[in-house]
Amino acid sequence: MLKDLKEVYESYNELFDQDITLQGWIRNHRKQKEIGFIDFNDGTCFKGVQLVYDNSLKDFEDISKLHIGSAITVVGTLIKSLREDQAFEIKVKSITLEGDCPEDYPIQPKRHTREFLREVAHLRPHTNLFGAIFRVRSVAAMAIHEYFQSHGYVYVHTPLITTTDCEGSDQMFKITTLNMNNLPILDNKVDMSKDLFGKKAYVTGTGQLHGEAYAMAYKKIYTFGPTFRTENSNTKTHANEFWMIEPEIAFCDINKLMDIEEEMLKFIVNYVLEKCPNELEFFDKFVENGLIEKLTKLVNSKFVRITHHDVVDILNKVDINWEFEPSYESDIAKEHEHYITKYFNGPVFITDWPKDIKAWYMKVNDDLKTVAAVDLEVPGAGELMGGSQREENYDKLLERINELGVDKEPIDWFCNLRKFGGCIHSGFGMGFERLLIYLTGVENIRDVIPFPRTPKNCDF
Amino acid sequence: MLKDLKEVYESYNELFDQDITLQGWIRNHRKQKEIGFIDFNDGTCFKGVQLVYDNSLKDFEDISKLHIGSAITVVGTLIKSLREDQAFEIKVKSITLEGDCPEDYPIQPKRHTREFLREVAHLRPHTNLFGAIFRVRSVAAMAIHEYFQSHGYVYVHTPLITTTDCEGSDQMFKITTLNMNNLPILDNKVDMSKDLFGKKAYVTGTGQLHGEAYAMAYKKIYTFGPTFRTENSNTKTHANEFWMIEPEIAFCDINKLMDIEEEMLKFIVNYVLEKCPNELEFFDKFVENGLIEKLTKLVNSKFVRITHHDVVDILNKVDINWEFEPSYESDIAKEHEHYITKYFNGPVFITDWPKDIKAWYMKVNDDLKTVAAVDLEVPGAGELMGGSQREENYDKLLERINELGVDKEPIDWFCNLRKFGGCIHSGFGMGFERLLIYLTGVENIRDVIPFPRTPKNCDF
Repeated sequence: MLKDLKEVYESYNELFDQDITLQGWIRNHRKQKEIGFIDFNDGTCFKGVQLVYDNSLKDFEDISKLHIGSAITVVGTLIKSLREDQAFEIKVKSITLEGDCPEDYPIQPKRHTREFLREVAHLRPHTNLFGAIFRVRSVAAMAIHEYFQSHGYVYVHTPLITTTDCEGSDQMFKITTLNMNNLPILDNKVDMSKDLFGKKAYVTGTGQLHGEAYAMAYKKIYTFGPTFRTENSNTKTHANEFWMIEPEIAFCDINKLMDIEEEMLKFIVNYVLEKCPNELEFFDKFVENGLIEKLTKLVNSKFVRITHHDVVDILNKVDINWEFEPSYESDIAKEHEHYITKYFNGPVFITDWPKDIKAWYMKVNDDLKTVAAVDLEVPGAGELMGGSQREENYDKLLERINELGVDKEPIDWFCNLRKFGGCIHSGFGMGFERLLIYLTGVENIRDVIPFPRTPKNCDF
Repeated sequence: MLKDLKEVYESYNELFDQDITLQGWIRNHRKQKEIGFIDFNDGTCFKGVQLVYDNSLKDFEDISKLHIGSAITVVGTLIKSLREDQAFEIKVKSITLEGDCPEDYPIQPKRHTREFLREVAHLRPHTNLFGAIFRVRSVAAMAIHEYFQSHGYVYVHTPLITTTDCEGSDQMFKITTLNMNNLPILDNKVDMSKDLFGKKAYVTGTGQLHGEAYAMAYKKIYTFGPTFRTENSNTKTHANEFWMIEPEIAFCDINKLMDIEEEMLKFIVNYVLEKCPNELEFFDKFVENGLIEKLTKLVNSKFVRITHHDVVDILNKVDINWEFEPSYESDIAKEHEHYITKYFNGPVFITDWPKDIKAWYMKVNDDLKTVAAVDLEVPGAGELMGGSQREENYDKLLERINELGVDKEPIDWFCNLRKFGGCIHSGFGMGFERLLIYLTGVENIRDVIPFPRTPKNCDF
């Protein structure tokens, strides 16, 4: 009976004294004279299982020579374990070596630094830590799809290649099929009309504009895909390639938007708490003490809603020497985010930001000074989502575009959405890795992306 | 009671004679002297609903002037319809205009050509056809996630930015942050060490190599993300950006792989048949007659499995003047694919292809002439999936790499997976748009991608 270990854990009570076949890898191997123990894991769940073999097997000698890291097929009987920390173990009848592993295998059963493991990114999911991180990544991705699909949203694959340059091309990768060592020149400039699309093209940093178009057809849409930034920045939170979720909702103002953000986040956290208890326990124990309590508390809390203005008031009243002085006209700094989430002891929606520090497509409030933007700050991870009500009035949108010197030609189609049955609408973006940092307690974005891309670092 | 139309359709029997509020768009508007009819749709389901208003309303005149395409909020009573083709309609109490639409709105309630609608890609989901196509796209994407997640696969976000060039860089977009009008030069060549990653980088055409690494940790993984090709090709089936699904399974040979492909495809088709009956009925009526029968038949059929050699035998025996002569050493042409699926009257797995026309990482069979590759051909859409057992033997893999002149250095890590507990494994790729063409009957890839990118065409 060939089984995944996950299936065995789901029904081991019915399998006692039965023979099963498992295929997976040796995580650890302890041999004694007449008996041996193999920590076996097939990757289908966090927990492994202990294989026990003894010298009554004719292959005892061969089995006892198996290396850590090797791929094996094991046939054995599922029996009650004498150890208290495991519900069952496998009494081996036979083991077939499917793929050997040399003794200099980099993943040894000991503690490796995360820095070292980044250098073997192709092997690090074999460890407990990274095995757990990337399973949570998969489960959290599914949680996002389940939330939106079950709430009637349409999943839209917005394009990554774009000729729209509204974020400023210095923030976007240029893509080309031209031979860079032999570029076609016209009037002393590269003749981009010779490129595949007949003009300059980029890989995009957002699907929002295209998402808005689809929200005007389906009412509720979401995107979930890779995104690119060229920032030459080597911090714990920056990567040049990451995944984003960008929902966009018609007939939705900023208050309803906050309801959606809160409901969605609680759904995801609940989903991961339910589906990944072993992984979260591991993180709680070895990565962030109190993680499960933090997540459980979030699910049961009501998120605070406060304006940027009132946040600055709070920051100004407190007796702290801020590195960055809080101001009604400015962004709030990391230190402020940190203080505010501690102050309210939970997630905080900060609304109504000064318009000069926010994007051109956001709805200007009646005070003409602020925009209907909202950032969600969560304890420990800072800004988790950023959203806004969008400017639905064509003339006002154009005014902002002109004010900020945005190139209108490539976004003409986008502006015109306001003319054809455009309506009040709102949307937000959530960086998927930011969410994972929050869910796992792992601090560095390089450790929640399977093969991270950062400046000077594009190995594998 | 504010409702999505989808919710109303799910429970209209309990809502008769109750007042509800809907928000959406006017698809059509017929006015008579004392009464008016609005075809209303909010995009949450394929079907719209008829709004009926009469001159007992004090706003009768204003309402009768509402334009097609406008966004409205309607309050009305849900009543039994006199028309046989609708279960209910809404007797209007009030309508609020949320966003006007001019009379030159491009999407009029008449038949538009698909070519024209491509030119208004931001508006085409407002039509019945494209509204249905992109809802099916969303539902089919969810079907894929549900299949793999419920079968214990881990979803892996493989990187799009890569420095690995194993498909040949002429097929891949180069990406750069350098100023193309002022490139740094060293020894008469562009000095790519000055670029963000310190070397040449591309956006990738596959996640397979990275997927294999993760299959060696989780046993069963899948990718689902965008993919890029630079082909300068203007056909119905080519786009420069599309989405792919690439599962990879450890301890899996080519026969088990075919089992998985067959089970997955049937799951997806069933899921869409169940969740999108109205959309499929529409396609069946207006796009491909017999579509639902085709899909139902697929779900209930057993897919044929036949070698490439035996396919060529069949093609040679039949009395047809082939444009391309069938040969044991060559690929099979579109005309052959078409014949074979008609011959077997259903989906066909073609296995054991001549090694010279297949990729370097595929397992060479004992005959040393063929590889353990498999293409799935489906009636009407041709090749839907392509997969293979992978070469798990390090030495044999290296032999193929040398034979084919593949640059080994950047894929060293990949080859080394064979050393560290590598095992028999297999995987396949499915083009998501190819699947959608099969599911909808729509023939042109430009019509199943929200904002398609093809040569000289990157508008929006």
